[in-house]
This record gives sequence, C-alpha cells and structure tokens, in this order.
Amino acid sequence: MADYRVCVVLLLLLLCAVTVCVESKYMIYDTAQGVVKGKLNVHLVAHTHDDVGWLKTVDQYYVGSNNSIQGACVQNVLDSTIQALLADKNRKFIYVEQAFFQRWWRDQSEKTQAIVKRLVSSGQLEMINGGWCMHDEAAPHYIDMIDQTTYGHNFIKEQFNVTPRIGWQIDPFGHSAVQAYLLGAELGFDSVFFGRIDYQDRAKRKGDKRLEVIWRGSKSLGSSSQIFAGAFPENYEPPPGGFYFEVNDDSPIVQDDIDLFDYNVEERVNDFVAAALSQGNITRTNHVMWTMGTDFKYQYAESWFRNMDKFIHYVNKDGRVNALYSTPSIYTDAKHAETDSWPLKEDDYFPYASDIDAYWTGYFTSRAGLKGYVRMLSGYYLAARQLEVMKGRNKAGPTTDYLGDALGIAQHHDAVSGTSQQHVANDYAKRLSIGQKEAEVVVAESIACMISPKPGCSSSASNIHQCPLLNISYCPSTEADLSSGKKLVAVIYNPLGWKRSDVIRLPVVSENVAVYDSSGKQVESQLLPIVKESISLRNYYATAYTGKTPSSTPKYWLAFTASVPPLGFSTYVISSTNKPASNFVKEAFYKHTGTGNDDIEIGSGNLKLIYSGSDGKLSQYVNSKSSVSTLSLFRSIFFIRHAICILII
Amino acid sequence: MADYRVCVVLLLLLLCAVTVCVESKYMIYDTAQGVVKGKLNVHLVAHTHDDVGWLKTVDQYYVGSNNSIQGACVQNVLDSTIQALLADKNRKFIYVEQAFFQRWWRDQSEKTQAIVKRLVSSGQLEMINGGWCMHDEAAPHYIDMIDQTTYGHNFIKEQFNVTPRIGWQIDPFGHSAVQAYLLGAELGFDSVFFGRIDYQDRAKRKGDKRLEVIWRGSKSLGSSSQIFAGAFPENYEPPPGGFYFEVNDDSPIVQDDIDLFDYNVEERVNDFVAAALSQGNITRTNHVMWTMGTDFKYQYAESWFRNMDKFIHYVNKDGRVNALYSTPSIYTDAKHAETDSWPLKEDDYFPYASDIDAYWTGYFTSRAGLKGYVRMLSGYYLAARQLEVMKGRNKAGPTTDYLGDALGIAQHHDAVSGTSQQHVANDYAKRLSIGQKEAEVVVAESIACMISPKPGCSSSASNIHQCPLLNISYCPSTEADLSSGKKLVAVIYNPLGWKRSDVIRLPVVSENVAVYDSSGKQVESQLLPIVKESISLRNYYATAYTGKTPSSTPKYWLAFTASVPPLGFSTYVISSTNKPASNFVKEAFYKHTGTGNDDIEIGSGNLKLIYSGSDGKLSQYVNSKSSVSTLSLFRSIFFIRHAICILII
Repeated sequence: MADYRVCVVLLLLLLCAVTVCVESKYMIYDTAQGVVKGKLNVHLVAHTHDDVGWLKTVDQYYVGSNNSIQGACVQNVLDSTIQALLADKNRKFIYVEQAFFQRWWRDQSEKTQAIVKRLVSSGQLEMINGGWCMHDEAAPHYIDMIDQTTYGHNFIKEQFNVTPRIGWQIDPFGHSAVQAYLLGAELGFDSVFFGRIDYQDRAKRKGDKRLEVIWRGSKSLGSSSQIFAGAFPENYEPPPGGFYFEVNDDSPIVQDDIDLFDYNVEERVNDFVAAALSQGNITRTNHVMWTMGTDFKYQYAESWFRNMDKFIHYVNKDGRVNALYSTPSIYTDAKHAETDSWPLKEDDYFPYASDIDAYWTGYFTSRAGLKGYVRMLSGYYLAARQLEVMKGRNKAGPTTDYLGDALGIAQHHDAVSGTSQQHVANDYAKRLSIGQKEAEVVVAESIACMISPKPGCSSSASNIHQCPLLNISYCPSTEADLSSGKKLVAVIYNPLGWKRSDVIRLPVVSENVAVYDSSGKQVESQLLPIVKESISLRNYYATAYTGKTPSSTPKYWLAFTASVPPLGFSTYVISSTNKPASNFVKEAFYKHTGTGNDDIEIGSGNLKLIYSGSDGKLSQYVNSKSSVSTLSLFRSIFFIRHAICILII
Repeated sequence: MADYRVCVVLLLLLLCAVTVCVESKYMIYDTAQGVVKGKLNVHLVAHTHDDVGWLKTVDQYYVGSNNSIQGACVQNVLDSTIQALLADKNRKFIYVEQAFFQRWWRDQSEKTQAIVKRLVSSGQLEMINGGWCMHDEAAPHYIDMIDQTTYGHNFIKEQFNVTPRIGWQIDPFGHSAVQAYLLGAELGFDSVFFGRIDYQDRAKRKGDKRLEVIWRGSKSLGSSSQIFAGAFPENYEPPPGGFYFEVNDDSPIVQDDIDLFDYNVEERVNDFVAAALSQGNITRTNHVMWTMGTDFKYQYAESWFRNMDKFIHYVNKDGRVNALYSTPSIYTDAKHAETDSWPLKEDDYFPYASDIDAYWTGYFTSRAGLKGYVRMLSGYYLAARQLEVMKGRNKAGPTTDYLGDALGIAQHHDAVSGTSQQHVANDYAKRLSIGQKEAEVVVAESIACMISPKPGCSSSASNIHQCPLLNISYCPSTEADLSSGKKLVAVIYNPLGWKRSDVIRLPVVSENVAVYDSSGKQVESQLLPIVKESISLRNYYATAYTGKTPSSTPKYWLAFTASVPPLGFSTYVISSTNKPASNFVKEAFYKHTGTGNDDIEIGSGNLKLIYSGSDGKLSQYVNSKSSVSTLSLFRSIFFIRHAICILII
C-alpha cells in the first residue's frame, strides 16, 4: 500500500539503554474519621448475612461446597476479613452467627486466635446478636430462643470476655414483641435492628420518620423493659446507587488513578452524597446507617474495604456529609447521645407482607413435621439437661451438647420456619436425630442412677428403654408379653416446676393388664382399642425408621393418670392380671337417613363431636364448657384417635 | 396433641454453668514436597491468564470495573496472591503480563515492593514469558514482538534483577516458527509452552507422546536455535475431574474436617490420582504439569491454595503419585534432567483449528483498519525512537514511551488480532493515537534540531508539520498556496540501514509546481489528478478526525522520487513555477460493444489492467514480468487510485 510509510525489515536487536524508572504511587487513604457533629454522619457497617442452612446445609455453607446451588463459603469470609482488618486499623466488621464462627474458630492456630482476640478487644471486630443462629421470631419456642442465644453468648464470653449488646434480626420474616422484651431488653441489649416489616407500614414510617422507635414489647413490664429498635429503610443490603463490592459485582468501583482511563471519583462521591441525603430525609438525628453487605458476602473482604476506604477518604474531602467505619454499637450510642424524642412502638411487627398479596404467613405452618420434631425435642432437651445435672455431666462420653447444638441450628429463620430446601430440612432433622440419640443415653444413665439403690449407680442404663416413636404407636418395651409374670416399670419424669397429673398411654398387646403405683396400690386404667389403620401406619413407618419390621402388634392403648412431683419422677408398674382392664369402648350405630341436614351428634356431656351423615367425616367439635365450637380440619386421623367406632350403614 | 410430652412453659433463665471448651483443631498441611524420582510427579503450576484487553479494556480488567461484561479484577489477583504466598513458603505462583503487573507495582508501598522482591528471589513468585502482553503470533510484525517482550523484560530486570527463562504462549491461536527461534531460543528461553494446536494434530500427538518436542523454528539457524516446546493435553485450565477453585466455582472442595458432614478426602485423592495417571499415559518422563488456573482467576487466591495444600498433603500421604507446588522452570529442569530423547518439530503450528470446520484464520484479516494502524505506527515508532536518540531523550516532556506502551498493548493476542469487543478495539486505537501524538512532538523536535544551523536547536519544532492523514489525501501543509513565492520544504527521513529511493506523493492545490533537491537542482515530478470521489472521502473523514472542514481542496498528487541515505534524511523544496509540472494523464475512450466477452485491456507494457466491458469494474491485474495474474477484489477504490480515467459509453 503505497500511501503508508512502509518500513522494510530492520532487524534491530535493541539492548535498550533506556532506564525504566517507575515511581511508587502508593496511596494511603484517610479512614480514621469518627462522628462529626453538625454533619450528616453515614455509618458504614460492614457485615455478612450467613444463613445457618437455607439452600445449602450449614456445613456446605461453611466449607464452600455445593456451589452450583449457591456460591457461598463462610471460611473464605472469615479468613479474608481478618486479613482485611489487619491491613487498616480503622476498618471494622461485625460478625453474627456463632454456628459458623465457632466452626472457623476451632480450626485456627493459636496465633490467629490471639490476633482475632486483639481485633475484638480493639473494637475492629464486633460480635453482634451473638446467638448460635439468627432465630426466626414466629416458629420457635421462646425457651429455644433463649437457649440458642445463650449457647452463642457463652462461646463469646469464654473466648473474648465480651457480651454482645446489640440485637440484629435483619432477615426474619416479621418481628415479635417477645424478641423486643425477652430477647432484647431483658438480655441487656441496647438496641435491635431488623429489615422485614410490612411494606405499607414501612412506607408510612419512612414518611414520618418512625422507622426507628422505642419498642415496649411487654404489656406487664411496660417501660421497664423497652428497647431502641430500628427498621432499615429497604433491606439489609447497601443503599441503591451502586455500592455492592463483592468480587464480580458490577457496581462502579471508585477509580481514582489518574493514570488509568475512566477516572470517576467525582461521580462516585456525588452518588454517595445523594444516597446519604436521601436516607437522611427519612431518619431522625444526623446519623444514618448503611448495611454494607448481604448474604454470604466478603468472600474476598478486601474488595469491599478497598472501595469503602476510598469513599470515606473522598467523601470526607468533599465535605458535604461525613462517612465513617462504624458498627451498630457506635450507631446506637450516637443515636442515644442525641436529645431527640422517639416514637413509641408496642405489639409486634406481624404479619409481614413484602408486597401486595405477598404475606409471609404460610411459613407459620410449613414443614409441620419438622416443626413438631423441634418442639418435641425442645421439651426433651429441657428434661435431659436437668437429668444430666442431677447425675453429673460426663467428662467423656455422651452429653446433651450435640442436641443443644442441633436445636440451636434448628431455630434459624430458614430451619424451624420450614423455608429451606428439602435436602437442608433433612440435614436439620438428621442433626436433631443424632443429638436425640446421644441425649437418650444421658437420660437413661441418669434415670438408671436415680432408680438405683443408693449409694452409687448400680442399675444399668441399658435397662432403661425409651420410646421416641410413641406417636406412631410403637414401643417394643410396653408391647412385651407379660403373661409369664414379667413386670413393666414405667418411670414418668416431670421437668416442670409444679406437680402434674397427665394421662399416660402405652401400647400393649393384651387386655389382661393392670397398673399399680409405687406403693403397690392399683390405679384406675383404661384400654382403648388401636384401630387397624393405625397399625398399618405404625408398621410402615416403624420399619422405615428402625430398618426392621415390628415383631409385635399392640391391640390397645393402656391409659392411666400419672401424678408426678415437680422436677421429679413417679414409678408405675404394669403387670398381667386374670381379667381384662376396664374397657369403655361403646359401640353405637347411627343410621343415615339420606335426606337433608343429617348430622350425627356424639357425646353425652360437654364434649360433642358432630359427624356428617352423608360422608361419615367429622365436621365439628363442640366443647360447651369452654364455649369452643370449632370446624374440624381433621379427617380420618382424628376419627381414629378418639377410638370411637362409627359405622355408617 | 396428647402423644407428645408436652412441656408447659417454664421460664428458666439459665446462667449456664457449663464451661465451653473448644479445642483448636488447627491443621498444618505438608506442602514442602519436591520432585520424587521413580514416581509420577504432578507439577501444580498456579497461574492466572490475564488478557491485555479482550471483552473489557486493559484498565477495566485491572481495576475490576465493567463487571457486567465479565467479572475480572487483576488488582484483586495480585493483592490476594501476595497474601497467599506469604501464608506458606512452599506455595508458588507465576505471573505473565507486565502491562498488568506494572500497573499494580507502581501502586504498592515500598514495604510491599520489598516483600514481593523477596518472593521473587526465593522463587515463590516467578515471572514467566514477561512481555508487556502475551503477543499473538500471526498478526504482529516481529519487530513489535521483540519490542514488547523487551519492554516487559526491562521492568523485570530493573525491579527484580531476573530475566525470564520460560516462554508461555498459552492462548494465542496457533504458533509461529518465529516464536520458536526468535522469541524463544534467541531470547535465551529454555522452553516454551502453549495450548492451541490443531485438534487433529493434538489427538495424534497425544497418541504417540509427541505433545512435547524439540522445536527448530529456523531453517538457516537449525539446531543452533532450538527450544523445548510443550503443547498442553487440552488447554491451559486444570484437568477434568473437578479441580477449579475460584470463589464460587463448583468443583468439589477437599472436605477433610471429620467434625463436619460430607468428608470426602478419599474420593478427591482418587480423582486426583486418576487424572494424573491419565495425563502420565500421554507424556514422556515421570513428570506432568497441571495448569491450575484460567482467565483472570485467583481473585481470592487463598481459595485455590487452600485446596492445593490439601491435595498435596493427602495425595502424597496416599503415595501412588507425587504432587508438588511447581513452576514451568522447575518442570522444564525436571524434563531436561531425564535422559529421554525428544521428537523433532520444524515449521509452525498454523493454521489452528479447534474443531472440525472451526479454523481460526479469519482473524488474520479481522479489523484490517486496526491492523494497518498498528503496522503503520510500528514503523513510525522505529523512526521516532531513532530521532529521539539522535536529539537526546527529554528528561521532562514528550517521549516515545507512551507509543511504545500502546504498541506493546496492541500486540496482545486479542488486540492486533482483531478479536476484541468493539469498545476495546476503540481503546487500543485511542492509546495508539495518544502515543502517536506525543511521538509526533518528539519527531518534530528532533527534525527541527537536525535542520537547524549548528550548534544548537534554534529551529522551532512548531515549524515542522507532519501529515498522519496522507492516506486520505489530507495534508494542509502541502496544500498551501505557493503562488506568492512561499516555499514548501519536504524532509524525508529513512529509518532503515540502507539507501532508499521511493516515490513520494503529496497533495497540492495547483499544477504550477516544481520540485528541487537540496542542492537546488530540479528533480523530475509528476502530477496525478485526484478524482472527486477521493475528495468526498477526504472531506468526510478529515472533518471527522480534526473536527473542522478542510479549508483547501487539493487537485493533484505531486509525485517525485526521493533518494534518502541510511538512517538519515533528504530535503526537497517545492515551489511555484510558471508552467505546470508534467502531467502524464492520458485519456482514452473504450467502447463497449455489448456482446460476448468484452474485456477492456489497459496498459502498453508489462503491467496490464483488465476491465469488464459490461459493468466497468476491474476484473484482473496482470504483471507479465513477474508472471502474476490476479483476480481483482478491488472495486471502485482501486479504480480511483490509479487515476486512469475510463469512461464507458
């Protein structure tokens, strides 16, 4: 091409004499800023929201496996965050879920543990909320809420000698007054922050600056148990405008190197100031908090901190607002220092709707089986811990710890709430089951000890049988054949602080049984036939659970009233007799006429059952003593449980 | 529900007396392994492949912006890798593209620079290849290949006092014999590794273990210039079987904590051994290399190294194969130490087909405009550097460095190859243009100095005009009106090492011009009319480029032969005359008969042009002297350039 200056080949082996001189353009960002009076203070709170199981199991989330479901690895978060905090003493971070933190802590060298302790004592790393998980507020029993919070706080106290003072319930689907007073004020927390409140409530509160309130959750305790409570403007993520800095996030990073193209400091500062002023307009006092993080972020913490360093530096240089590394504690103290008056909030923040027709209330009953398992084991755990204390805790061997840990995990807002993936729900149940098995040994050892002739624990725990599958009518110990003179001893333990009487029901194979109390006196008992539908369910599930087909088939529930002293036990003996125990089965026949309203009413006293004549299904339950009249949602199960035989002809 | 042990509420504020004792399970992995004779050695080479522009620009890749196009941030890679190397002195990493490394280096504190120097001298961090980029091997001029390689090596020498010894051309689309001898052996490299070779060639070489060869790239230099050359079995990524460990990658991580579920050490070791043996089967000697990385990986380097630590530890414990942290140098030395004979390779590895019907040859001509610009500036840069040396390099003020940097970037295998996104191609051109502008000043200063009366440089550089848009017939300086007696001086510089004669063409506005050499003697010149189609193109593009409409309109090209000494210049003076310069325009009319083969043949000598009589388009070019007869792909452009008027009637 004639128009170009064509250079014919010149083989020039340049030994280039040009000295390459590269100056260091190392930049130190001024990140030491604290609160400044008279300016709008933007508290940057670096955080990660780590679900104790949700789409992946807690262990998968910790080690970072199963990433095709969700990319997340808490080990990366903690490893990289510690490094990032060491790089600049002004940086701060909060950590919340102890189920993850403790998995990480036990893997660290003593050197690293010492470093982390210094970061905590200097205030760079703060434990917030501090329970084993961040519990749901609708589904858990409040004893479980207390237990899991205590479990986490114990570790923190042991390792760092600090006590969390701020509540952080940023994801649960609505908020309970019990959280405010019992798990808030009564815990000694100075504030609690959360994200999810009804969308209409949120809009209204933004309008009149009532997102942050004084919350009195208890009618009886009133103002003696109140807490500063803040709902976030939108959610627990960074504000809109491009402030997400996880690896591969596409918010615009702060490009402040003039030797590279696309320098953008001025635009980014303007974005920051705009977002700050916008939030300032809906917030009382001169302080706003930015939740700089979201689910499982900070896998490479430096990518967040590098940009926050720059924002703090350039925004403060600009001067319109004041930016600082902060924590919810610093923020709370700043709010407290202001002399604003605060609106009052009572009751709760339920139900939670994220949008029109989007009420998060289904979860109150999702995965009812798991919910029931958790509740059942909650009571079992309470009893097991008492029995463990009474006997004395094992130095080696089974304890109730695994069950406590599993229950702590189960309170998570995607666990007992039933909002996890199926494989994760299975994982929760598996942990509970493992914990239950270990606690059963503790219970057996303790009972064995207590029923042994003193001194010592001569009775063997292996003689103590428990029946976790009583709910499917399966209890091999009570289904024994007693006709040879063998006796069955039932030990009934009461974990509550007052005397109780309750009806006990045990499956038995023969009607020739009688019940005696510990003094040898016979007590009234009743036999209730087990219908065959129960038996098929029983056999199917007991086989699935134990791996072998049941060898006996019970015919009756043996029912009797047990009286048990507080924090104590009573013993009853069941043995064979010549004649059957009383059997109050009554058979009555009801005829369906085939026309009109054909309800069949059963029951002679205050308790009545109303069956539909046309299809035989239970339609109503009436308790005239308590004035309860309830439509029955139960079908054949309820039909069976009450052991009233109804034949439609 | 009567079947559960119902726990009535017990408000138990446990001040838990249980002491929580967590043992540290800190694990140190044995990663110190070196080569073991007699076992299959798996050399784990941690690397990142960082394109100097491709889907994003080089600056966007460096700072990690524009992540919606592609998630990538080299700053993260280098920041996190240095940290990971410091955590275990057995870990190793290689870095390649100096355009990125130097952007990072100049931002580091002296403390960090000192740390990195120690990592290089200890061998933990090794510079491999070491050019400004990893150049393509088909499109660049080999002077540019040498220049960009030198540019990078200079920085490395200056900063670390080392010279790279291994070639690493892992992504370019086929491999040139010139790379082997000129950019390989003659550079002092001991080996070169690459990924892309024809799929059929690869299959054959796997079959007879000829992926690794001795490559003699030069017919004339023969065995005095040969190099050990290895093609990877598949590509430059980790082997199949799940060995990718970037944050959020879903290869199975090594889960070796028995206190967590899904322990998988045995399966992962088996996967590793299987992949190693499979590669061992197609490789000579007891050494295989695993390229543990791919495009822009290691944004959080610890996630890769954590898993590689575990693999090295557990695989060596298993003992079937030997795993070690390695580099291509260590691998090359290990191959060299074996007494195997190696197959010989001559010629090149072009063209490259990745699959059937998938020949990567279109890129030889993609983005011809950018290719042309690079080639043109390559020659300009050569001349500019010479002129810069002759005058003396500026201590402050313009240099040719920016142009050298931009040309270095432009040799990248997605730059001059034309395989980048459009906005990235624009970015390459922008850098070249900025570089060109600065180099123009250097050239002007130097020429001004050289034409000044000695001593000193009294002539002003502002009097020296250059015409970068000569290819669109635009040169305001030569289009001046000379009728008032003004003279135009043309300085023609020859950057080559031998005397040259070339035809110079300059656009002029009048035919009344004559050309004189530096002794005042008139030289023969010729006027070639510029057809009006050229003028409209000229006006359109010159306006676009300069931002203003051209004020003059040239009528002719003034053509004359310039003789220029080697590495020197000649001066010619153009001035007004009374009579027109000779004009050899000949008009001839050819009549199209309208029937049959109606070619119009133009040209009386050895050079003939054949036009089609029916549509007036050029169909063939014949040079009977060189026996060339070529079908013409040019249409109206060629028609215009030759200024032969053909009128079809």
